[in-house]
Amino acid sequence: MSVTPLENVRVIDLTQVLAGPFCTQLLSTMGAEVIHVEPPWGGYATMLFRDTPLDVRRRIWATLERNKKNITLNLRSEKGKEIFLELVKKGDVVMDNFGPGVMERLGLNYDVLSEVNPKIIYCALSGYGRTGPWKDRRAYDPCIQASTGVMITTGYADRRPVRAGPAISDCLGGLYAAIGILLALHARDTITGKGQIIDCAMYDASISVLVGEYARGNWSRMGNRYPFAVPSEVYETKDGKLEFISVQADAQWEALMKAVGRENMAAKKLTMTERVKLADEVDNILEAWTGAKTQEEIEKILHEIKVPCAPVLELEEVVENPHSAAREMFVEVDDMYGKITGVPGVVPKLSDTPGVIKWGLIPSDAFNEEVYAGLLGYTKEELVKLKEEEII
Amino acid sequence: MSVTPLENVRVIDLTQVLAGPFCTQLLSTMGAEVIHVEPPWGGYATMLFRDTPLDVRRRIWATLERNKKNITLNLRSEKGKEIFLELVKKGDVVMDNFGPGVMERLGLNYDVLSEVNPKIIYCALSGYGRTGPWKDRRAYDPCIQASTGVMITTGYADRRPVRAGPAISDCLGGLYAAIGILLALHARDTITGKGQIIDCAMYDASISVLVGEYARGNWSRMGNRYPFAVPSEVYETKDGKLEFISVQADAQWEALMKAVGRENMAAKKLTMTERVKLADEVDNILEAWTGAKTQEEIEKILHEIKVPCAPVLELEEVVENPHSAAREMFVEVDDMYGKITGVPGVVPKLSDTPGVIKWGLIPSDAFNEEVYAGLLGYTKEELVKLKEEEII
Repeated sequence: MSVTPLENVRVIDLTQVLAGPFCTQLLSTMGAEVIHVEPPWGGYATMLFRDTPLDVRRRIWATLERNKKNITLNLRSEKGKEIFLELVKKGDVVMDNFGPGVMERLGLNYDVLSEVNPKIIYCALSGYGRTGPWKDRRAYDPCIQASTGVMITTGYADRRPVRAGPAISDCLGGLYAAIGILLALHARDTITGKGQIIDCAMYDASISVLVGEYARGNWSRMGNRYPFAVPSEVYETKDGKLEFISVQADAQWEALMKAVGRENMAAKKLTMTERVKLADEVDNILEAWTGAKTQEEIEKILHEIKVPCAPVLELEEVVENPHSAAREMFVEVDDMYGKITGVPGVVPKLSDTPGVIKWGLIPSDAFNEEVYAGLLGYTKEELVKLKEEEII
Repeated sequence: MSVTPLENVRVIDLTQVLAGPFCTQLLSTMGAEVIHVEPPWGGYATMLFRDTPLDVRRRIWATLERNKKNITLNLRSEKGKEIFLELVKKGDVVMDNFGPGVMERLGLNYDVLSEVNPKIIYCALSGYGRTGPWKDRRAYDPCIQASTGVMITTGYADRRPVRAGPAISDCLGGLYAAIGILLALHARDTITGKGQIIDCAMYDASISVLVGEYARGNWSRMGNRYPFAVPSEVYETKDGKLEFISVQADAQWEALMKAVGRENMAAKKLTMTERVKLADEVDNILEAWTGAKTQEEIEKILHEIKVPCAPVLELEEVVENPHSAAREMFVEVDDMYGKITGVPGVVPKLSDTPGVIKWGLIPSDAFNEEVYAGLLGYTKEELVKLKEEEII
């Protein structure tokens, strides 16, 4: 069996949906020992989305909770805090997405953590970060999309702004947090010898992906179009499917116009600025063409002339796409109920130390004995007492 | 001056817009020495978007090219390949986003690279990855959005699917590539002692962010709404602004209904399933309320009762937001033309080894002398000859 890239890293995970767990599931998929701390009065994974069918919840937690070692611990009790610091002493990373101030109020700020373990890396992930006038604002994913420009650049000009479908602000926050943790591990292990704080904001993360939009400044939403690509639209095919077609380079434009029987348009050698003005006419030309052909015929022609295109797929179609199977992008995972299918796979693919998915949802105290007895050295009798006192 | 987390890492960067440079600019911002290789007949940064105003291009390249050491090198020539392998010998990471097969055709596949340097990490970032039936497909960002479910889940049910505004498939690909590189560095330096290949696909990366959507399977686009949040919509205010309001928890719902004068709705103790059926009515109630108040008044009330909300900001408003200043999210950068403002800042914020932005766009041969003479030991005379022969 191959090794995983983070098998020598231990993470103490205080996160709850969605941005935080998205970060720590990536670390646990890549082999880190992620000890997920949940309160004794109920784990968040078992509490949330109770209206939702069980197999849906199992699939969500098979992503967000996979490979994690769940333990229960009451961080509000003095004994609980003491035990937490014993974990910190044996850990490499502490991660939370409570929002600014919560760890301080618990008496567990970075100064306290680094005193018991100067090598500890503390990653605080929040909506707006640990500084600035908006730091205490509540931030669901679409709130961040609204306040960072994601929403204003998504959708149609004749309709109100709309969110990007996926929870991208949550996920971007989680990915940058993972990057911050990996950077801090590298700095600690090869340069400084000590830990540090990472202040990761979904706000900052979401701004960072609007590279061209902020560079232009006055960019607003324009559906599927761009100021530098014509055509760029979704077209309906003869068999009732949707095909996205996008052209930037002059050579692509000319090849496309010839392929759809508009040699005259190709011959005009239009610049992009000129093509942008003709966007409506180009859409009409293309939809007349796509409407007379099946998606398969369209794709065959466009791939041959190297024009970028893609089918607009329903979620079920992505799952069933043979390419998804080849990439192992939807897998079966064991959890506390049995096996659950259709769980998103490992990203990215490392050749020598690949990530691995070992288990999905498990009870919130599943690893109490391994962690408290095995790692911290508590006796069975002490564990019984801690449980009676609702500390674990 | 503080140290940067990657100051002991050297990256040989063969990437071009957008996904690849988004990865390597993150590494260079975090202190890696990124040697960016461009062809002697013209760097991509100076060639692309020539229709676009110069200050816009400078801002784009101040993100994508920042801190990079540009050199020119003709990889099609035998001598050029030889020099490239001398760089590989002195490097930690080689990164490209050419697409599968290109490095192989150049005779520079991983086997060749690892033979001259077994510790080299090779990251190949592409639209659909190095394996599977779609690996050779062309992939602009919106093509990947179309084929992975991002597009089908974005926009309104009564309109065709629409792309997320930002180039999220490009950026997600770049972020996962950075994660792969940092994982491989950690594995090499602390476990295996050797390099490996990272196969990073924008396709895989984009699927990974649709956690709840794939878990449900039958999810399609529903504008700003969700199956588990009512209200969740953009509302117009008395002063003509747009406010996003989103409620999930029962306590938030009841507090909101009381705040808007609908004690009767609050008293009904509706479950989420029941609220979802009333979404249209709730939207009418809320827009009647927001339409009678300024955005400032609305935000004050909602923050007090802890209901998640956010203004829908134009890009200029995000730039001018005092919170952006506090987070240093739009900064001034030096480049070959002078200073350029409004460049997205460093993400995430590391306390002890923070990232830093040193320069934006520079000529494509700006570091030829430092790299070829300083790092590889070529003489001035040899450099003149290499330039005459169009090898550099």
